[in-house]
Formats: sequence, C-alpha cells, structure tokens
Amino acid sequence: MNKLGKQTIKFDSPPTITEVASIVGPKESQGPLAKYFDKCLDDEFWGEKTWEKAESKIIKETVNMAIAKSNIASSDIDFCFAGDLLNQCISSSFGLREINIPFFGVFGACSTFVESMCLGSVFIDAGAAKNVLCSTSSHFCSAEKQFRFPLELGNQRPPTSQWTVTGSGAAVLSKDGNGPFITHITPGKIVDMGIKDANNMGAAMAPAAFDTLITHFEDTGRKPSYYDVILTGDLGYIGKDIVKDLCKTKGYNISGNYNDCGVLIFDKSTQDTHSGGSGCACIGTVFSGYIYKQLQEKKINKVLLVATGALTNATSSQQGESIPRNSPRHSNRKLKEDNPVPNCPILLN
Amino acid sequence: MNKLGKQTIKFDSPPTITEVASIVGPKESQGPLAKYFDKCLDDEFWGEKTWEKAESKIIKETVNMAIAKSNIASSDIDFCFAGDLLNQCISSSFGLREINIPFFGVFGACSTFVESMCLGSVFIDAGAAKNVLCSTSSHFCSAEKQFRFPLELGNQRPPTSQWTVTGSGAAVLSKDGNGPFITHITPGKIVDMGIKDANNMGAAMAPAAFDTLITHFEDTGRKPSYYDVILTGDLGYIGKDIVKDLCKTKGYNISGNYNDCGVLIFDKSTQDTHSGGSGCACIGTVFSGYIYKQLQEKKINKVLLVATGALTNATSSQQGESIPRNSPRHSNRKLKEDNPVPNCPILLN
Repeated sequence: MNKLGKQTIKFDSPPTITEVASIVGPKESQGPLAKYFDKCLDDEFWGEKTWEKAESKIIKETVNMAIAKSNIASSDIDFCFAGDLLNQCISSSFGLREINIPFFGVFGACSTFVESMCLGSVFIDAGAAKNVLCSTSSHFCSAEKQFRFPLELGNQRPPTSQWTVTGSGAAVLSKDGNGPFITHITPGKIVDMGIKDANNMGAAMAPAAFDTLITHFEDTGRKPSYYDVILTGDLGYIGKDIVKDLCKTKGYNISGNYNDCGVLIFDKSTQDTHSGGSGCACIGTVFSGYIYKQLQEKKINKVLLVATGALTNATSSQQGESIPRNSPRHSNRKLKEDNPVPNCPILLN
Repeated sequence: MNKLGKQTIKFDSPPTITEVASIVGPKESQGPLAKYFDKCLDDEFWGEKTWEKAESKIIKETVNMAIAKSNIASSDIDFCFAGDLLNQCISSSFGLREINIPFFGVFGACSTFVESMCLGSVFIDAGAAKNVLCSTSSHFCSAEKQFRFPLELGNQRPPTSQWTVTGSGAAVLSKDGNGPFITHITPGKIVDMGIKDANNMGAAMAPAAFDTLITHFEDTGRKPSYYDVILTGDLGYIGKDIVKDLCKTKGYNISGNYNDCGVLIFDKSTQDTHSGGSGCACIGTVFSGYIYKQLQEKKINKVLLVATGALTNATSSQQGESIPRNSPRHSNRKLKEDNPVPNCPILLN
C-alpha cells in the first residue's frame, strides 16, 4: 500500500468484503430497509434481562452469522476489530468473549464500524492477516440510558435529536476474493467546531465529514460524480444539509449522489425519529444490509462510505465541554466484475 | 510482514521507537521510578477544574512533549492511535482534538498503550505511514469516580485492589531509525475465567497474560530466557504470582526475568497501594519512562511487553457480569546496536 496525498491510503491488493450480516431491532424492522436485514427482532430484550445483555447477544449472533455465511472457519479468521457505544465497549467484549479470535478493541463512536474495516483492510493488504472480522453494535435503550435520560422518565426529545439504531453489523474481509473491494481509506482528523448540544449530533459531526470528504477528493483527484453513492453515517437530516452546503462552499456539488444512513434507515413520515437514525449500528446495518446487497446485485458499483462519530460522554456534557471529535473515515468500496459489462466495470485500482 | 504460528506477526522492517514521553501525578512522583519520568506533577488537577480536564491536559502535554523530543514535525506524523479508561475515551479525544493528525480511537483498557503500538507498527511496516503517534492516559481520581466509588466517600479499598496510575505515556514510532525496534507482535484473545470482583483485576487478567505469553513462546520458538525482561502491565502483586504459577504448569519458568509494571511503579512498604498500580498509564509511563531509558542506555536489549486490560464497566459489574476480557498484546522490543559489543548484539530479526 502507499500513501496518496495528505491522508489517503491506497491498497495494492484491495481486500474483498467477503460477507456481511446484520440484525436489527423492532423499530428498524418497521423501517424502509427492513427487507435487506438478515434478522429483524420483535422486541428489544431478545430474551435477555437487560438492554446491555441484549446488545451483547445481538453483536454475538451477528458475528456468528457473518462467519457462517462466509464459509470461512472461525479458526481461519486472524483478527477481530470491534467496538461499540457502551462505556468501555462492553457490548463487544462481552458479546465476543467466546469467539476465540485475537481481538483489537476500537472506539470511534458511530464511526466504529468503518474504523474497524479501515484497520482490518490495512492488516490484510499488509500480509498480517488473510481474513479479519469487523463488527459493531448499538441499542436505543442502552444508549439513551447511558448518554441522556432514563427511558422511564418519558422525556421529550428535541427536534434535532437522532434515534440510536438497535442492531449490529458485521463484515468478514479477506485477502482472496472477487469483491466488493476496499480500494482506499482516508482516516479523518478530530474536528471540533464548538457544538455543545448532545441532542444535535448532526451539527457536531457535519464539519468532520466535510473535512474528510474534501481531503479524499483532493488526495485522489476524484470528483463526487466518480461515485455512484456517497454515504455518510449518521448525520441525520440536519447534518446532511450542513454537509451539502459546506461542500458547495469548496466547489463540490454532492447533491446528486449523496445520502446519509440516518436518513435512510427510518421513514420520516411514519416513524417519529426527528432528525433520523444514529449509533454505531446505523452505518453498520445500512451498509451490511442495504448497500452490500446493492453492490452484489451490481445496482451500484462505486461507493464512498463516510462514517463520523461524536466523541462525547455524559460527564463531558455536564462539564460544559463541546462535542469535539468526529472521527470520519472514508472507505471506498468498489465492485469487481469478473465479466465486465459497460455499466459494471472492473474498478480495482 | 508475515504471520508466525497462530497469532504472531513478524515485521520485515521493524519500526523504531523514535521517542517517548511520560508525565505522572503526585503519587507516582514519590515512587521508585520518579527519576525516569519527564515530568512529575505535584497536584492532581494541574490547574484544571475537574479530574477529567486534568487527564486531558496530561495526555495533551505528553503527546506534545513526545513530538517535540522526536524532532519530527507534527505534520510529518501520519496517524495517531490513542485511547483511555474514561467512558467513550474522552480524555484522548478532548486532549488530542487540536493535534490535527488523522486519528484512530483504540480501546483495550489497560492494554491500550501496547495495542496502539501494535496497530502503529503494522501501519509503518506496511508502508501506510512513516511516523505514527501512540498514546494513552489514566487518572486515579477520574477512574475511581467512574468505576468504583466517589473519592469523597472515603471507602476502604480491599487488599486485592490496585491503584490507578495518574499519568500519560506517548511514543512516536518511525519507519526510519536506529531502534529500539518493535520486531514482533502477538495480539491476544479475550479470556474470561469468571472473575467477578472489580477489586481484583490482577486475578481477572492473569489468565489472559498467560495465554498470550505461551502463544508467543510457541509461535516464535523462543524461551523466556531469550528476553532480558518480560514485563506485564498491570497484574499487580496478586496477578504476577498467578502468571508465574500458570507458566510453570506449562513448563515455562519466567521467575528469573519477569516483572510487572504495577509492581514496579509504587513502593510497597511506603506507598499504600495494596496490590500495586494499574490503569492505562501504568504500562504507558513505566515503558515510556523506565524501560525505554534502559533500552537507550543498553542496560537491557530484549524486552517482551505484555499488556492486559480488564474489560468491564460499572454497569456490567452491577449486573453480575464477570470481567471477561483481558486484551493482552505482546510487543517484542529489541535494541539495535550499530557497533555491537558482546552484551549488546544486533537483535534485529
């Protein structure tokens, strides 16, 4: 691999996203993407006594499903990269304590899934691994309890707030395979524009997504139109508009092919989620469910995945801190087509 | 790089640990290693209003010091890998929000520093980076408040408990340099032996340290005597004895050259820390202070660094969960000697 421009890494032998899996909660199961997920749960507990234990079960079963679908023995998976939103990432560590795969804990808030895939891709292209596992989870109930208010209080949520997705996404990346490939990554910087409202994550994260998007375009010399889909996660409705406007100020028009996972996962008119979805599982499930299947079916071929995470906790908000860090990571996924047709070119580069 | 045995990665062009820095709190400043640290603070707040803000300042200043000492422009550092013990790793993200270096958030509890160096080493040997920054922090007061009891309660601590180190360690790793080198890493698995006592981390982590130690010896074909120092972090007195006993059951005698950072950092007879030190900063400061200087002065040449982290949070303990995950990572550091003398051989391999 080699460095391209300021922040981008270009892989020599791009890793294949061999298989993915996704499990979602009841609200997501009523949303517009329901048919793309592998499993839709009809209650938040899934037979467990606490939301935290339920979340651990969700990531555990999602990971097991991804491994089973990949037809790769779990003993042939060299490393696992995972993290989540719960304090000290306990959903991942409890959920994955039995998988017996060397483990790297990752924390990028809502960017964790893409951060895991970035790290996993580097390990594979470097020859350190043949197969790696990347995963994340989030749970509306455990997240609200931890970051905001006890659900039992029945607090009103402001219009800027987003709804943490309950679910998990997992991906197996491999050295050998026929794509979709991860060809480039552009790890982002921490950007803090001084937003202090823990109920307006979209506004906090948009400047970071913008910063990394522009860097990616400059590093690669590509224009937004190069991609079939540019997908952020999870800016929601408010953050999505901000990113579009910010890109325009730099002369990049992303309106034609840009969307956000937080906008896609819930129906605005029938599901009351205010500014859309969020949480580690938002981009995790939208990619592992909806986007991956579209890549497989060659409905889309070139995807730029831009994950951001708000780096805050309950204590820091109480102490008057802003929400500094968004951790955008770009992953450029492209589908290799063994028998190329005009609209599905081989895009490995 | 290539895979060696089950879990070990051997680097083709081992990264150099170009420079390190360490800052510690007042208790550590009275301990036996005080003279090795770059800066010793005489109060826990360092002019800040909260312990969390103080911890962020400590990691920020440590990182700035490591960069300054390295004589590498911060614009020439490609990526930063960092994390800490606070919920959502806010010490790192607030402390490092101004460094303007692409950022990977890492969570391995007390193994975070070594986990960061493992990831950074892979990026460098892979050609993805020329220089990376690795860092972590912990703070006794913020950790006690978050994981156990408010300090104001004045709770008695049980004899098995360990004392979270206040401080930060940082390292700059580089492609080019004359060592000390990181030649191998052995990322560990999550090991859960069912220990549920949040005041006995040493017993929870010892089986994981043992598991990865044995794997490292088997993967590399080395014996414990190959190393000048085998150093775990942070099992404390109780965990240290358990690891020694466990190794004996597999025929490995590590008694001669083995020690633990939690045992080294405080004086048992004069500093009342019960089972020793712990926290992300324990191995972070002991390595960046004491061990690195011994490598530089060639008092030791071959070091096996074994970091473990207890994967628990306050909620999981209240819900009766065990402390499942220890995340041991081994890093084999060796000093290259340009003009080798008998007791300082060139050890790059």
